[in-house]
Amino acid sequence: MAPGRLEQNGGNALHTVKDQVVTKKRPAPGTELSDLHDDVLSTYRILIADLCQQYNMGHPGGAIGMAAIGVALWKYAMRYAPHTPDWFNRDRFVLSNGHTCLFQYSFLHLSGYKAMTFDQLKSYHSDRADSLTPGHPEIEIEGIEVTTGPLGQGVANAVGLAMATKNLAATYNKPGLDVVSNHTWCMIGDACLQEGVGLEAISLAGHWRLNNLTIIYDNNQITCDGSVDMVNNEDINAKMQACGFDILEVEDGCYDVNAIVQALAQARQSKDKPTFINIKTTIGLGSAVAGKAAAHGAPFGAEDVKNMKRANGFDPEKHFEIDADVRNFFAELPKRGEAFVQEWDKLFDTYCKQFPELGQELQARACGAILKDWKKLVPESFDTADTPSRVSGGKVINPLAKSINSFMVGTADLSPSVNMIWDGKVDFQPPNLKTECGINGDYSGRYIHYGVREHAMAGIANGLAAFNPGTIIPVTSSFFMFYLYAAPAVRMGALQRLQVIHVATHDSIGAGEDGPTHQPIELAVLFRSMPNLLYIRPGDSEEVAGAWTMAIEYKDGPSIISESRHKLPQLHGGAQGKGLTSRDGVAKGAYVLHEADGGNADVTIIGVGAELSFAVNVAKQLGETQNIKARVVSFPCWRLFEEQPVEYRRQVLSRHGQGGVPAVVIEPYAPNGWERYADAGINMRTFGHSLPGKYIYDHFGFATGPMATKIAAYLEGIQAGRYIKGEFVDL
Amino acid sequence: MAPGRLEQNGGNALHTVKDQVVTKKRPAPGTELSDLHDDVLSTYRILIADLCQQYNMGHPGGAIGMAAIGVALWKYAMRYAPHTPDWFNRDRFVLSNGHTCLFQYSFLHLSGYKAMTFDQLKSYHSDRADSLTPGHPEIEIEGIEVTTGPLGQGVANAVGLAMATKNLAATYNKPGLDVVSNHTWCMIGDACLQEGVGLEAISLAGHWRLNNLTIIYDNNQITCDGSVDMVNNEDINAKMQACGFDILEVEDGCYDVNAIVQALAQARQSKDKPTFINIKTTIGLGSAVAGKAAAHGAPFGAEDVKNMKRANGFDPEKHFEIDADVRNFFAELPKRGEAFVQEWDKLFDTYCKQFPELGQELQARACGAILKDWKKLVPESFDTADTPSRVSGGKVINPLAKSINSFMVGTADLSPSVNMIWDGKVDFQPPNLKTECGINGDYSGRYIHYGVREHAMAGIANGLAAFNPGTIIPVTSSFFMFYLYAAPAVRMGALQRLQVIHVATHDSIGAGEDGPTHQPIELAVLFRSMPNLLYIRPGDSEEVAGAWTMAIEYKDGPSIISESRHKLPQLHGGAQGKGLTSRDGVAKGAYVLHEADGGNADVTIIGVGAELSFAVNVAKQLGETQNIKARVVSFPCWRLFEEQPVEYRRQVLSRHGQGGVPAVVIEPYAPNGWERYADAGINMRTFGHSLPGKYIYDHFGFATGPMATKIAAYLEGIQAGRYIKGEFVDL
Repeated sequence: MAPGRLEQNGGNALHTVKDQVVTKKRPAPGTELSDLHDDVLSTYRILIADLCQQYNMGHPGGAIGMAAIGVALWKYAMRYAPHTPDWFNRDRFVLSNGHTCLFQYSFLHLSGYKAMTFDQLKSYHSDRADSLTPGHPEIEIEGIEVTTGPLGQGVANAVGLAMATKNLAATYNKPGLDVVSNHTWCMIGDACLQEGVGLEAISLAGHWRLNNLTIIYDNNQITCDGSVDMVNNEDINAKMQACGFDILEVEDGCYDVNAIVQALAQARQSKDKPTFINIKTTIGLGSAVAGKAAAHGAPFGAEDVKNMKRANGFDPEKHFEIDADVRNFFAELPKRGEAFVQEWDKLFDTYCKQFPELGQELQARACGAILKDWKKLVPESFDTADTPSRVSGGKVINPLAKSINSFMVGTADLSPSVNMIWDGKVDFQPPNLKTECGINGDYSGRYIHYGVREHAMAGIANGLAAFNPGTIIPVTSSFFMFYLYAAPAVRMGALQRLQVIHVATHDSIGAGEDGPTHQPIELAVLFRSMPNLLYIRPGDSEEVAGAWTMAIEYKDGPSIISESRHKLPQLHGGAQGKGLTSRDGVAKGAYVLHEADGGNADVTIIGVGAELSFAVNVAKQLGETQNIKARVVSFPCWRLFEEQPVEYRRQVLSRHGQGGVPAVVIEPYAPNGWERYADAGINMRTFGHSLPGKYIYDHFGFATGPMATKIAAYLEGIQAGRYIKGEFVDL
Repeated sequence: MAPGRLEQNGGNALHTVKDQVVTKKRPAPGTELSDLHDDVLSTYRILIADLCQQYNMGHPGGAIGMAAIGVALWKYAMRYAPHTPDWFNRDRFVLSNGHTCLFQYSFLHLSGYKAMTFDQLKSYHSDRADSLTPGHPEIEIEGIEVTTGPLGQGVANAVGLAMATKNLAATYNKPGLDVVSNHTWCMIGDACLQEGVGLEAISLAGHWRLNNLTIIYDNNQITCDGSVDMVNNEDINAKMQACGFDILEVEDGCYDVNAIVQALAQARQSKDKPTFINIKTTIGLGSAVAGKAAAHGAPFGAEDVKNMKRANGFDPEKHFEIDADVRNFFAELPKRGEAFVQEWDKLFDTYCKQFPELGQELQARACGAILKDWKKLVPESFDTADTPSRVSGGKVINPLAKSINSFMVGTADLSPSVNMIWDGKVDFQPPNLKTECGINGDYSGRYIHYGVREHAMAGIANGLAAFNPGTIIPVTSSFFMFYLYAAPAVRMGALQRLQVIHVATHDSIGAGEDGPTHQPIELAVLFRSMPNLLYIRPGDSEEVAGAWTMAIEYKDGPSIISESRHKLPQLHGGAQGKGLTSRDGVAKGAYVLHEADGGNADVTIIGVGAELSFAVNVAKQLGETQNIKARVVSFPCWRLFEEQPVEYRRQVLSRHGQGGVPAVVIEPYAPNGWERYADAGINMRTFGHSLPGKYIYDHFGFATGPMATKIAAYLEGIQAGRYIKGEFVDL
């Protein structure tokens, strides 16, 4: 029953689809192996039906249709170790059609992952908050590489995982010593081929010639609404071929384990293209709703499940039956896994002896460490000339990216704008690619051109980060506004607590003449409210250094560093003097930039990011022309501020209690959420406008004079009782 | 110089790409026409260079490369009327590569649109806030159909525009009386073929066989980062063909106007597929950076522009020169346009005489009117049995959608979940399509299966709405969480003030076992902060009726109606008694649901949407067990509330001033933004969890007892001075 034996059994089941698909008969019945496969398949299918039936909830159909694919993967094709689930060189498996999670949970259980006990498996949709069988696979669970569910995301994650392998292999492997050599398998359904993020990622996988990636298409031609031909009549094989994939097709995906095994083996051997295996299956096979949309998202009903059992020789009154034969079929897998691990350990030992430095580096990275002294690479001080914070960002990240192999820096086609190219950078590109513009690269390159595909960029970055947390720190970049395209993937990174650093430039109306389509107004509050994510708006180069430092130190989720297109005054005082801004202040989320002279302030002005200097200027003007004493607070990050002790927060804001003064926030974003920190705001309540940067702030009332006048009038209004304390005022 | 004459001139320029592309020689030089074309092209190119040079800003390269396409479109192919820009049956043109806006502005000017004066054209990137030449095309400008800029969106818009034509034509046209027959032209660059939203929309256009849609690909093989082969080596013609497009190719897209005209003419005649015209061009043609990424987003420099002028026989010292010959070349277009209009007016007159009822209906719809008595179709009262608000939503919209042709209702593959199918609904499908699941339809159908393509769904809906505002009211539907996929298109709808109604079900952690990937936490604040958009969370059927009424009456932007998956207690009292909830209250954004008995309340509890009844229950419990008198406010929509007079807002919240009491909001979303309306909140500060609906609220502390205890302790804490007034408290 070794994989080798099976391969002889494949017959004519499998075809490279160059010309056209050839049909396949089921393997000759009666052989010991096909009988056993049939037992395993029917046991598994009935198990899924039972799991959904017990609490009358869940998604049975897809998981059941994919039975033979699961056997082919976990029993034969994949290299993994159930008892060493985090083995570095394991194959990665992504269930992009995450609603079929029972597929993965069941095979994790059967193949011997310790955490996925039978009790745990049976807790699917129970009241157990500690269940390891949530409605969609979650990264925290042993044996699960990434959280999936939102369709299409898994495809992008898988591309990232395969890239991680390519990059590490090109960086560390030596002849005869392939210490990184795993394959990535991505299971998809019809929907992942409809979602834009999936299509973007597919284009990139083809372009990058990721021959270590296989997309396995559970082609059941059914989605929630009915048959897929209601919404899609594409020639999918032709489309995938045009995108640079090798195409394999399996006709009888419900039963023909051997054909699938052979296809998977062929995919692993692919020379220079990713493989797309189009496997025809039947959703909810064996149930009364087989082949119908009704099989997708609801249990079949007790009677139907009984009928399934009867038809397969099971006792209709018993539940969760797994025969010893079936258990035995999977019993060898933990042992096989440990053999893989030991073999690899030996290989890695040899490697470390022959290449001690590289071995040490890889080992450190495998533990999530980055170069110890990385902080020394962050500039200690900056020039005092006006500088766009996107340029400051480049000054901080480029020396780090240059020296530290952990960083893989990419952009959605905005290299000239985001300033992230370091001296001597090499592109991540398939070897042998020579482009029209004279760029070539190889897989050891760590600068990634994602094309104009923001969503896939963020999803792929999640995959890079998930390969082995800490080994790769992916950095993405685009205009801030277009992180709205990427937001579903950014969210998945936050949910999974993956360290990905997103560099978002052109981050306010200061972006100017590109106009309201490019000017974020309401976007920041999304990310400020997103759990686990740091949205940081630094105000000058010093704060940019603080933002990057925090983003690199923060291992529990993604960060967005929000940078300006235009030049910003520098408040840090340069190498010489002590300035106003402070990188340590950034670490606290907000800090006092300037206390009113002689204490007894009349007002606090909160400044943020690209407009931080506005707050300083307004404070000055209030003092000079209105005799109003203003404190200034710099407020780059809500979430970091929320983590400070309450005493610190109260001291910084100084709004309440004895000596409290009103706080006014200046930020050309929607005000929503600032009400927690300020009493009034000069913000945007509309979309922006196309005007060059030097005019737009004035156009929307963000010139120093008018702002100072507004604030003075507001303070006077408070004195005169025109405002009610505690009611936020939009100035 | 009639189009007819040109067609003879095309030679072998154009090929249906079935087998492969054939190259094309430039048309024989020396003929009067090709000379004139060359003059027009060089004048236009130099005009673009000048327009970018004057303020040293802008995107010249793409617009210059597309010169010949522009001449082919505006002079020959498109049917439009510069002096009647809103002619109902005009061809629609979408510039999906919106950064090349000068292309559109210049041809609008040359072809005689009155608003686009030469002065206006020259105000590109000036300090004029009233400029009609913003950095990306905007819908408010005469001759511009949709605002573009964020790449890929325009493709989806164009699909929607073409669908609108198909639907109206199928509904109203009669033999010999094609009152709706226009074509939609969509200009794209390389990026629109990379963005997921474009790819999703392309799949749908092919599926729907929109033969009235032509995608014109400015194939210059350059994006910001360099040559496209750095990020894309697809066989794009094969890919588009697999997606159901006819492919045409023009080899010499820089000069060969005739070949382009011929391709456009052939595309208009396409029998049953949309057409993809792949036109090879050179970015920044004639400049020193021609064919390079540097031509994309920055002016060429004064000297280079001078050289361009010299090379083309222009005076290098003069700017904005347009010869009389060139002016004359376009001079006939307004007259031609008026002839189109008159011809159509006559046709429509005849139509109205023969089909007076249909004629009247179409005329009314063309003016943006919907059935006068539509409000009578909204149920006056509802059942008092617990009902999911997604079911209530169906009860409200289905009778409306059934009777009113203006509604086109669609879903991203969630028909069984969103409850928007009315009795007798017909699918929008290509005629003759028979699907596996037995569904067929025709173009008069108004139920749209978008597949699992949320982003394209929203972008296409924008196109449907933009066809002629008010004629079609598109309704989209999906789970609320997946409106994050659609958010960039929803935003574009808000920016353009397009009336699109988005139905977002499964709108809180109440979605249950699907887990944190499907439970929105931080999403609502994005839409609540988005200008021009109504995000409405109704709490029971009566509030659902209010939400729909507002969404239909609100013509100035999109609405999101946020509905529950699970059953909600009904607070409206049914047909008999007077209940707590009120549709008129929804119209005000927030309203008092319940005043404390005998006045003198101790606290206000704010309830929202699916959890509105929690607030009522907590108030009751506080009264019964703690002797605390609680008011209850229902708060379905921030934006509507903000539009109320300040007196109303203060009366509803009753937080401040004499008799003011603390307000506590209960909503299992991120608290951010509620600080404006409440003093404390019971909210979510983390992502959700996979637990069935009946357990999840308790898991996160939203059970009545614990919430009442928290609120009582909070009030006691205030008395004891443990809280500082004005500081928002997360309970």
